[in-house]
Amino acid sequence: VRVAVVGLGLIGGSIGLAARRRAAAYVCGYDPDAAVLARARELGAIDEPATDLAAGVGDADAVFVAAPVGALARTIADVLEAAPARSVVSDVGSTKFALATSGFDRRFIGGHPLAGAETAGIEHAREDLFEGATWYLTPGAQTPRALALRLQSLLVELGARPAEIEPGAHDRMMARVSHLPHVFANLLASQAARVPEVSAGSLGPSFRDATRVAGANTKIWTDIFLSNREALLAAIDESAEALASVRSALSGGDRPALAAWHQQAHEDRARLLREDSGNDS
Amino acid sequence: VRVAVVGLGLIGGSIGLAARRRAAAYVCGYDPDAAVLARARELGAIDEPATDLAAGVGDADAVFVAAPVGALARTIADVLEAAPARSVVSDVGSTKFALATSGFDRRFIGGHPLAGAETAGIEHAREDLFEGATWYLTPGAQTPRALALRLQSLLVELGARPAEIEPGAHDRMMARVSHLPHVFANLLASQAARVPEVSAGSLGPSFRDATRVAGANTKIWTDIFLSNREALLAAIDESAEALASVRSALSGGDRPALAAWHQQAHEDRARLLREDSGNDS
Repeated sequence: VRVAVVGLGLIGGSIGLAARRRAAAYVCGYDPDAAVLARARELGAIDEPATDLAAGVGDADAVFVAAPVGALARTIADVLEAAPARSVVSDVGSTKFALATSGFDRRFIGGHPLAGAETAGIEHAREDLFEGATWYLTPGAQTPRALALRLQSLLVELGARPAEIEPGAHDRMMARVSHLPHVFANLLASQAARVPEVSAGSLGPSFRDATRVAGANTKIWTDIFLSNREALLAAIDESAEALASVRSALSGGDRPALAAWHQQAHEDRARLLREDSGNDS
Repeated sequence: VRVAVVGLGLIGGSIGLAARRRAAAYVCGYDPDAAVLARARELGAIDEPATDLAAGVGDADAVFVAAPVGALARTIADVLEAAPARSVVSDVGSTKFALATSGFDRRFIGGHPLAGAETAGIEHAREDLFEGATWYLTPGAQTPRALALRLQSLLVELGARPAEIEPGAHDRMMARVSHLPHVFANLLASQAARVPEVSAGSLGPSFRDATRVAGANTKIWTDIFLSNREALLAAIDESAEALASVRSALSGGDRPALAAWHQQAHEDRARLLREDSGNDS
């Protein structure tokens, strides 16, 4: 199988490594940064560097577009223009609804692996990055079954667990399990930073955990927030409503309401974790 | 030195262990639960179990009240009634303003060690629980210097770093670095639990970190929230305002505003962590 990877950061590089070593694929790679492209070859993430995008995807059975969210739509369009009719073309972006409604042809199947948020860049690429990780796919009603199955079987060879999901549902879910946690982490970091008494030793493990992702890569996260605007706005509105409700209980000294709210959160988290058999511990 | 510990959970038990082994103290302990009291002795957390509170503190140079926040004020009053005139009496509660304005006599100095949030109970008590941990103290203008110094030197022997702070400032800070993170963790857990598509594998490390403390011990945290009501209400109002501001930028597709907000959070967290040389990594 011939695989093309467009964009050789952490995710693209790891796809290349895993495809070569686990799926015995011949991997052609393209990246607009020539130094990254050369490094990807040195690290064994690709067999062949392409001098331009069209050359890179010209004879691929499967193409993974691992460009930043902000450049995704344009890059996917360029790839579909250059890729063979038999190709399946996918991406690894964090939001899926906008791409699914962009009018791409039937070769495109949106994808989103849940992996690799903590680091970035080809230097951190790992063959086992997707081991056990959920990899969402958003095939449409028009998607040829052969292409969907080819993509799925390739992902399984990479070590991932492909899971089909409706793109709008994906984005609503990610707004709550990924994007909103970033919003809250930012709020917490900035509020704490404005307290003059915060000093050496006043930040415990709970604060560190809660703000772990605060201000993570500004460019990437600004793009993600904007690409999931409607779903994130709805999630923020839910949060504002819940916050107002807690405020009201606290303000009124309503101990039973506060306890019930807290207990509900306890049960909610326990249920979420019990249902989870995912890729992190 | 003779130390009394009232309430032998994780914190009280660890004070006993550290006082005996590190400060060569003779430790008398009291707990309303006879089984806990017996277990504390078995584990070496106390030299002598007291049959009632008055007997336990009757000849102590220093008394630590490690009762739950909801029972603190009453227990401290009982201890001050029974303790010798030479004693210093302290507590380990998470909020300090209400106690500081309760009209206790000059022997009382409020305290709050930043340690031990993750587990509870005498079984988890450790001699080194306070190693390197900030231990806030809130002496008043009337506090005899000898008592404040006796308490501080004892805390240093336990391995802690005593730090004096004004009680209101302590509570405003804790509202933002500890209590608000619990509020947000609860919101996130409950919002995610209402998304039908959340399933095995959809919860990544960022969600787990962000909700680590969601629904932690309902009884304890309801008491803590209520005991810090005014400061936490103010912190919640700040959050609601910041959330509305993010919502507005997102709704308007204001990329520069979102990027600036995100970048500010990045710098805020970096500054907070750079200033921190505390007890967790």
